[in-house]
Amino acid sequence: MTERVVFFVSDTTGVTAETLGHSLITQFAGQNFRQLTLPFIDSVDKARGAVETINATCAAGKPKPIVFSTLVQPDVRAIVKESDGLHLDIFDEFLAPLTEELGEEPVLELGLSHGMSNIDAYMKRIEATNFALANDDGGASRNYDQADVILIGVSRSGKTPTCLYLALQYGVYAANYPLTDEELETGELPKFLMRQKKKLYGLTIDPGRLVEIRKERRPMGRYSSAQQVRFELREADKIFRRYKIPNVNTTSFSIEEISSRILDSTGVERRVRP
Amino acid sequence: MTERVVFFVSDTTGVTAETLGHSLITQFAGQNFRQLTLPFIDSVDKARGAVETINATCAAGKPKPIVFSTLVQPDVRAIVKESDGLHLDIFDEFLAPLTEELGEEPVLELGLSHGMSNIDAYMKRIEATNFALANDDGGASRNYDQADVILIGVSRSGKTPTCLYLALQYGVYAANYPLTDEELETGELPKFLMRQKKKLYGLTIDPGRLVEIRKERRPMGRYSSAQQVRFELREADKIFRRYKIPNVNTTSFSIEEISSRILDSTGVERRVRP
Repeated sequence: MTERVVFFVSDTTGVTAETLGHSLITQFAGQNFRQLTLPFIDSVDKARGAVETINATCAAGKPKPIVFSTLVQPDVRAIVKESDGLHLDIFDEFLAPLTEELGEEPVLELGLSHGMSNIDAYMKRIEATNFALANDDGGASRNYDQADVILIGVSRSGKTPTCLYLALQYGVYAANYPLTDEELETGELPKFLMRQKKKLYGLTIDPGRLVEIRKERRPMGRYSSAQQVRFELREADKIFRRYKIPNVNTTSFSIEEISSRILDSTGVERRVRP
Repeated sequence: MTERVVFFVSDTTGVTAETLGHSLITQFAGQNFRQLTLPFIDSVDKARGAVETINATCAAGKPKPIVFSTLVQPDVRAIVKESDGLHLDIFDEFLAPLTEELGEEPVLELGLSHGMSNIDAYMKRIEATNFALANDDGGASRNYDQADVILIGVSRSGKTPTCLYLALQYGVYAANYPLTDEELETGELPKFLMRQKKKLYGLTIDPGRLVEIRKERRPMGRYSSAQQVRFELREADKIFRRYKIPNVNTTSFSIEEISSRILDSTGVERRVRP
């Protein structure tokens, strides 16, 4: 099938253009997209270079490329807009109504969103990441007093990536504690966890999926056997019910979805905005 | 100053609405925004609830709230659009020109962007995160053959959060190796790193900023002294020049910016799109 190129053009990282564009193009199932990011297009010269790159994909008979952009500077945006692609820019669309409603002119400065304009936000994310690493998998630190949330679940239920995502994206202090044979066989949580009961949040997952994930790590043996996985998940579920710990089944969720559900359900505040 | 509420309304996680809205509102410096995310608004009933929440902030004399939304379902979007806030929705603005250009009707399904529609992408991100953790700080694994990129730099120059971000956001395999006294005093990189020279990328940072960051970790002693920090950064810089290792000064960059610059400069391909 003919490939259609999608460009994400940004005067900074391209993260916003990528996120925006991805939400939209995933709604068109019948296409074969090739995605390219052109970051740091922050001058008129670079804008001309970007247009050349875009137009080079428009050879005879090829479909028109799609250009998602988040270009703050009007002169840069005006140039990229003249490429041969279909140009969709959030500042073009949304800046006018916002300016009118807020009664204030936009500063039109680069890097205010994903830039280091806010050192405080940067430090919070770094510190939250360090916290997640130090308190990963029941790690030695166990600074659970400082935690906003403590995820519990069996091995490979998604605890670590979720904690890291909560830290990097939102500056949230997320610890995690693995439910191992000790807890699963006795059905009891250790005292140091019970003292933090309000912060506990459970992750569970369908047995079939967990077997698959564990086999990636260790193809053979008890760890990835269907019997063991079913036993662990059943006992973890009993613990969640016994202690009334809110929990989410991660089987059909992405890391973003798991994280959003945890924040939504616990009411934990984002310390930083993406 | 009067607070103006900004809502991010989504039928899934809210990540796209947050990213989009944040890029726009940070352009207005004179405002006092309070940001609230309303995720998982995926039914007509929930849409009505969201409208109630939005309208409740519109009491007499209060400024009109701003509503950024990424609502895929037309009926849900139509209801939220009728709130008393200023409603800005990416599907409203961009779906029509895209549909026309692509000559295909959008599927209008939820969760295609940050959903688990793509288990393969989920697994890649998880595996890349595990790789980053196993190969953090010169860790025991050192599966550098598998790495897409290996970040080197002195302690607290930003290596670990950047590797984790590259993994979680893009599924990129990023290892990191700390430059310690051994390398800094001899000016030599170990052989196992030299074998991967093409993958090396350096992080540096201004001395004043690094002193500040290290003091957060250990307020006293050599580790966070200006003299030690200046020595380490000077010697690291010599190593980068000696071996012609591309590098970036992270002082004024966010994690997103550092990551984008690394991908842009090395040409490492994103394995997954956010």
